[in-house]
Amino acid sequence: VDPAPLSNIRIVLVRPIYSGNVGAICRAMKNMGLSDLAIAGRDREWDEPEVLKMACHAGDVFAARREFPAFADAVADCALVAGTTSRLGLYRGHSRSPRDWAPRLLEAAGAGRVALAFGPEDSGLSNEDLALCTQIVQIPSAADYPSLNLAQSVMICAYEIFIAAGVFEGSREKSPEATAQQRERMFAIWEETLLAIGFMKEDKAEHMMLGLRRILSRGPLSDADVRILMGIARQMQWRSGRPPPAE
Amino acid sequence: VDPAPLSNIRIVLVRPIYSGNVGAICRAMKNMGLSDLAIAGRDREWDEPEVLKMACHAGDVFAARREFPAFADAVADCALVAGTTSRLGLYRGHSRSPRDWAPRLLEAAGAGRVALAFGPEDSGLSNEDLALCTQIVQIPSAADYPSLNLAQSVMICAYEIFIAAGVFEGSREKSPEATAQQRERMFAIWEETLLAIGFMKEDKAEHMMLGLRRILSRGPLSDADVRILMGIARQMQWRSGRPPPAE
Repeated sequence: VDPAPLSNIRIVLVRPIYSGNVGAICRAMKNMGLSDLAIAGRDREWDEPEVLKMACHAGDVFAARREFPAFADAVADCALVAGTTSRLGLYRGHSRSPRDWAPRLLEAAGAGRVALAFGPEDSGLSNEDLALCTQIVQIPSAADYPSLNLAQSVMICAYEIFIAAGVFEGSREKSPEATAQQRERMFAIWEETLLAIGFMKEDKAEHMMLGLRRILSRGPLSDADVRILMGIARQMQWRSGRPPPAE
Repeated sequence: VDPAPLSNIRIVLVRPIYSGNVGAICRAMKNMGLSDLAIAGRDREWDEPEVLKMACHAGDVFAARREFPAFADAVADCALVAGTTSRLGLYRGHSRSPRDWAPRLLEAAGAGRVALAFGPEDSGLSNEDLALCTQIVQIPSAADYPSLNLAQSVMICAYEIFIAAGVFEGSREKSPEATAQQRERMFAIWEETLLAIGFMKEDKAEHMMLGLRRILSRGPLSDADVRILMGIARQMQWRSGRPPPAE
């Protein structure tokens, strides 16, 4: 999948207060394949050691940031401007979750720049800021304590966009799932073995084997799993004094 | 929806190093409706001011934590034990994403306790730790920098479980979507108005109105939206010297 849309997504921090949060945001962005960071309207000094401590191996994202006097300047070249808020007054009914918006933001990012904006830690985006936004994003959270840390909010939004982009290739099962034929050979060897070692008698075998089939059918059994299970049965037969069946 | 399964989900931190991370985790947990925190095998002092600074309004989660000598002790009463890892050696092919696992964890949490375990910041869960896990969780991340901050990892897993639990009720559109009848009344008033103010002539009206319909059909129009748009048209007519049409 083409990662290009991710490079068109800009994280805009409006008047962020804490340097540590900005560092943590750089790391979260890089973790989720984003690199365009804009800071708007910040009027205090950076605590660079704190930024870099939290950025960990994402100091490059901070170094490449751009700073703008106002939010409007930071998003001037953006088509969509999505703003996050947890305040529900004016925007109740217009906000949607990061998961709902992610496909729309990615679609727009395929053709132009898209901004995803976050307000100051203490107050969030102002009504004036939100008026500049074309989409309002609300992160689902518990009624008891709905207010997320700024870097955590950025992470959740970035994560949803990263997942929706489909860039990530999860780990693949290397060993394919066993076929019915392989499974049946395995169950046959186990039945023979459990009889041979005296775990069950002929008249209980059918019932026991059904139990064993049930246990071993709760998840996918790979080719490799079936070979391990056959190996155990053969070894049990061998130790119990009977020659292992020919393969 | 019953939030009970969430109260059965335990976050287990195995040998966490930084107090600040543990505080941030308390906040992330409370944001996502979780409260059961266990710490295993920690052999250093807490920096409580740092914990509480990052926990913000979730100091109660930290105060209610339980500490155990070893990982096995912390999960002894748990049915499912899900462990997070970014190492792919031994577990490649067995891991699944937080989104994939969330329904299974919630299902199990409806009947008993479920643990979700995270290793130390510097090395993650050991092979010995992972052997105690019934499910292996891998958080999707960018190949360039796949390693997430510990508190961010906890947030993503907690968020996926919270979403899957369906506890959150997003903001609802208070004003229902407008009916075709309401929309057509609005377009009729606009057409009349745009002719009255001399914006278009009769022979261009059909084409112009199609353009206006296209613009106003890109998203849902609520009853309230339609009333605003009708109000604008009426006011334009009034200012242009023609009496507004009766409603």
